This record gives sequence, structure tokens and C-alpha cells, in this order.
Amino acid sequence: MRGQAIAVLETPSVLIDMDIMERNIARMQARCDQLGISFRPHIKTHKIPDIARRQLAAGAVGIACQKVSEAEVFAAAGFRDIQIPYNIVGARKTGRLAQLARKVKLSVTVDSRAVVDGIAAAAQKADAHIDMLVELVSLGERTGTTPADALSLAQHIAATDNLGFAGLMIYPSDAAIRPRLLETLNLLAAAGIPVAVISGGGSGAIREAHLLPELTEMRVGTYVFYDWNSVSQGYTTFENCAMRLRATVVSAHEASRVILDAGSKSIHSETVNGRFGYIEEFPAARLRQVNEEHGYVDFSACPSTPAVGDILHIIPVHTCVVTNLHNQVYGVRGGMIEQVWDVAARGLVW
Amino acid sequence: MRGQAIAVLETPSVLIDMDIMERNIARMQARCDQLGISFRPHIKTHKIPDIARRQLAAGAVGIACQKVSEAEVFAAAGFRDIQIPYNIVGARKTGRLAQLARKVKLSVTVDSRAVVDGIAAAAQKADAHIDMLVELVSLGERTGTTPADALSLAQHIAATDNLGFAGLMIYPSDAAIRPRLLETLNLLAAAGIPVAVISGGGSGAIREAHLLPELTEMRVGTYVFYDWNSVSQGYTTFENCAMRLRATVVSAHEASRVILDAGSKSIHSETVNGRFGYIEEFPAARLRQVNEEHGYVDFSACPSTPAVGDILHIIPVHTCVVTNLHNQVYGVRGGMIEQVWDVAARGLVW
Repeated sequence: MRGQAIAVLETPSVLIDMDIMERNIARMQARCDQLGISFRPHIKTHKIPDIARRQLAAGAVGIACQKVSEAEVFAAAGFRDIQIPYNIVGARKTGRLAQLARKVKLSVTVDSRAVVDGIAAAAQKADAHIDMLVELVSLGERTGTTPADALSLAQHIAATDNLGFAGLMIYPSDAAIRPRLLETLNLLAAAGIPVAVISGGGSGAIREAHLLPELTEMRVGTYVFYDWNSVSQGYTTFENCAMRLRATVVSAHEASRVILDAGSKSIHSETVNGRFGYIEEFPAARLRQVNEEHGYVDFSACPSTPAVGDILHIIPVHTCVVTNLHNQVYGVRGGMIEQVWDVAARGLVW
Repeated sequence: MRGQAIAVLETPSVLIDMDIMERNIARMQARCDQLGISFRPHIKTHKIPDIARRQLAAGAVGIACQKVSEAEVFAAAGFRDIQIPYNIVGARKTGRLAQLARKVKLSVTVDSRAVVDGIAAAAQKADAHIDMLVELVSLGERTGTTPADALSLAQHIAATDNLGFAGLMIYPSDAAIRPRLLETLNLLAAAGIPVAVISGGGSGAIREAHLLPELTEMRVGTYVFYDWNSVSQGYTTFENCAMRLRATVVSAHEASRVILDAGSKSIHSETVNGRFGYIEEFPAARLRQVNEEHGYVDFSACPSTPAVGDILHIIPVHTCVVTNLHNQVYGVRGGMIEQVWDVAARGLVW
């Protein structure tokens, strides 16, 4: 299909505007260069080695993957510096992690002794070395631990064979977390424990990274495509949204009851202001409900209503979960298909 | 993995309880037999030919698929009576539909002349015959047309080469739709147009099918697994829910902040009462938020809180969208893995 016009694509199909994606990649790298910190793109957003290579070519130091399975795919594709900012738990996963650590420079994050000890056992069994970042709990209250606990974990890691304490991780690394970060750094300094890496992350947090000068690297994923969430949260504008779901009108009896062939199995089920996607051609249209293969749109507030067979382009609420629903996505430029990408790391739940 | 204990599975993994699934298949077939109507399971829920074969073996007359791509997979797997209750729009899709109609007994639903004419052109070009059911708009207000329009569509179909008017389709076929159905049947009878099939559908509608005696067949999908939606809507009970997502606790610092390795990429993002899944071992636990690989659970209302490494089993909110996220699902019985099923029709957006 490469080299053909977009019109040859059936719907629903995911289109990536190459010009916008390239600008997003260059802009984020420039932002991190200006901050004087390393940039480590998170590949969960695209799951496509070719796009990650473009991010490295722009200056990224390595990649972040969210799962061992994703890391395995990218290691096989030639990537040699991989961080998995996730607590890897379970003997089979930690065993695969240790095998991976024999092939690539691997770091993981941990927030409890149980996670550290599980990974340590696997690393020792495989005679592998694994670097660990201790995760500080952020204002997002997801994973992560306290400053005092971070100190004891760092000491435990440093004292364990086959492990290395590499530093700290925070997600999202909003500037407001700085007091907690400084408290932790003081505890580690007092204990004489060096901190090589302080890894922050988040599409919103990158905007305040200059207020957290202790950071040595940032992990951001969504920026490569951006989405309606990013726009609604003020992280970017629609001009920088690279992904569109191309959809077809399959039923149009009333302006308030128009049905698209895009539903929860192609655009997912997340919402912004109760809407499941932003229809580029009809900004006032309300994609108000989705079933698996049906998107319900109300065009009452629009100057016109599309007809059966019309093609519309939807900016998704959340690009990361959309990529994961498609076997291929299409890089487009000037109305032509320039890239046909297999989503190499999709559907790998482990 | 077949024949091994469930414990060998990494998480998150989808388990299907074979005993419960077999009971669900037998019960639904018995219900339709008792009603004296044909049963046509909708495969969108499982997308697995082996499960559809079990549904046919129990007495189903054929299957329903929601997309041409799903129908292509099931035709290749040997299924010979396929209904696609969807408006197929676009020259490439209708061309594939016509090729399929040369191999299997195929019927589709339509709700507008534009859809009929697009399919007719493809059928004529391929010298294929396609049966059509006209969809009546239901109280669900999704696709479908009015009684008067249904009559003119039926006449148009009957007068078009390579097409056959097979009857009417309703989704969901709640009993309250009967006046509209009778009005349509009277119009068709007055015009001398025979109606061979009246196809109803819906996990809720099957419970009122006896109040719609005109039905000749029912399409139901979710019943094979059921889910929390089905339970919360009173269609069934947890005892009949066959699907579990097996997940691992990866962080457990506070009862109100426990994190599972199951997020929107393995359990999807639909909710019941603001919860993303029902945790079988902890009915009072609140799976209150999901990121792609993180499920946030509040165990405050529970007598105990699980620890890192503990395995939990989640009954999904909506099974159809969960199957679509996994490359394999596992049929289990008595703690052992009895089936390893590839989700053959997953990720086929067209």
C-alpha cells in the first residue's frame, strides 16, 4: 500500500501524519536538550520500532517500555538501552527480565522489598546484572514509596548481588513533588549513597521540568502523536495531534443519530467531556456513545450532516490505547501512504 | 500449556471456565428451542472458531459476525451460514462481501438505499447472491429505519438483481418494539412481500423474546461468557460469568492504594458503578481507576488487603472488548488449562 493514496485504506484505519510526528519528535528532543537532561521516549504509545529509531536518531538516549514483552520485542529489534518503569513481579516474568538483562543495558523501577528480592533471585540465577531505580510515590498516588522507605530500599539494593542502585524514578514528575524528592536526596546523601539517575516522566510534567532541576532524564510517550486528552489538559494544541482514526458514516437518518463504523474496538472507550473522540471535519459534532463497531454521533449543532459513505477523521481521546487495538497503522504525508507499520508490540499482555 | 496447572500462566491472562461456558451454551440453546425459534450466536464476544463450533453443535443454525473481516476468518474456518447484522459501506468492503457470498450462505442487514445499492453493485459485479434483512430502528436508537421506509427498502431489494429480501432485523429486540414490528409486517403483507426471517438480538432482549412471538431467530453474543454488565443489568448472576482476568498485585503500600498489573490494555476502560471490574476474591474492593498497565484498587472496605505477588481474578465489565485485547485466551477446568485458544478474529478492524 506504500505509495498509494489514503483513499485505498478501508475504515476504520489509524493514520499518522508524518510531518506532525516528525515535528513532535524534534520539539521534545529540543526541549530536553535545552533543559540539559537526557530524553527517554516511552514506546507504549506507538509500540513500533521504526518510530522509536526516529526518536533515537533525534537524540534520545534509550527507550522506556512498560512490560517485559514490549522490551523483548524492542531488544529483538536492536534496541540496547531499555528501561522498564514498572514493578516486575512473578517468577516467569523476572526470569525473562534476567535473560533480557544479559543482552541489553536494562533498568527497572521498584517500590518494595518484595519486588527487589524477586528480581534479585532471577538475576542471580541467570548471572545477570539489573540496575534499579526506586520509585517515589508522586501526587498521582499510583505506585511508589516514601523518602524513608526509598533510603532503605536503596541500601538493600546496593547490598544485593547482581543488582545496582541507579537512582530514583517519579511519575508524573510534577514540580510540586520537589520537596519529597529533595528530602529523599538528602537522606541518600547522608547515607553516602550516590544517585546517578533521577528519571521523571509525564506529558504534563515535561512542561514543568525546568522547576525540578534535579532531574537527569525525562520519559514521555504520548507527545509523539498527542491526542484530545493532551489538548484538553493544555499540554498541546490540535495542530500537533498526529493521529486520526479514519471512519465511514454507515447510517444517517437524523442529524442526532448518525452512526460511524468506529467503536470501542477501534477508538476505545475513554472520553473527554463525555465525547469519545474529536471529529476534525465537524468540531461541534458529539461522538456521544460507542458500541464495539458503532460510534453514535449527534450532528445537531453542526451546519450540515454527513451522508452514508462519507469519510470522517477522528482525533482520539487517548492514542496509546488506540494503537494497541490495531495490527497496522499508516504513516501518511500529502495524502499518500508513506509507511505501513505493524504494531510490533501490540497485544502482548505480559 | 494445555494440560498444565493455571499457575503456569503469567498475568494478566484471560481464563474461561469451561464448565460455566458449556452451561451457558446449553441454557441459551434450550431457551431458543423452547421458544421454537432459531438461535444464531454472535461471535464478536469470543472471536474463536472452536467456541462457535460448540455453539453450532448445541443446535445453533449459523453465526453472526459484526465485520466482513470476522466473517472471512470464520468462512475460512469452515462456517457456511453467516449473517453480518451491519451496514457494509465502501467499495472494497462490499467487494470482499460479494466474494464471501460466493462461498457461504450470507446475509447482511441494511437500513438505507445507499447501503443496498453499494452492496448490489458489488454483488452484480461478482455475480454473487446476497440476502438482506432490513433493520427496523429499535428503542436503542442506533442504526435502523422506520416501518414506511422499511417497506420501500424491501421493495427496492426485491426488485434488484443479485439481492434477496430475507426479512427484518431488530437490535435490541425488546418486547416494547412489537407495535412498530407489527406495523411493518402489515405494510409488507399489504404489499404482498413475504417475510421469511425476523431476527432479534440482545442479551437482555432474549429474556422477553416470548413477548415477541413474530421472531423467527435470535442473535445473542455475550451470554457465552457473560460479564459484570450482564449481572448489573439483571440478565444473569455471577455464577454464570465464565471469564476472569487473572492479575497480580504489583504494589501494596496502603489498603486504599493497591496496584494490579491489569489496566486499560487488558481489562479495557468500561465501568459499572465507577468500577472497572469485579474482583472475585474481594467483592468489596473498588477497582477505581485504570492506566494502560495499572489497575488502582481500594481495599479499605475489605477485611484484609492482598500483598505484592498475590493473584486476583477479575470479572470484566464487558467481555467482548476484553477478548479483543488478547492474542490468546485460556479455557480452564478444575484448575488445569484445557484449551489454549488463539483469538482468531481479533485486531481485524475492517
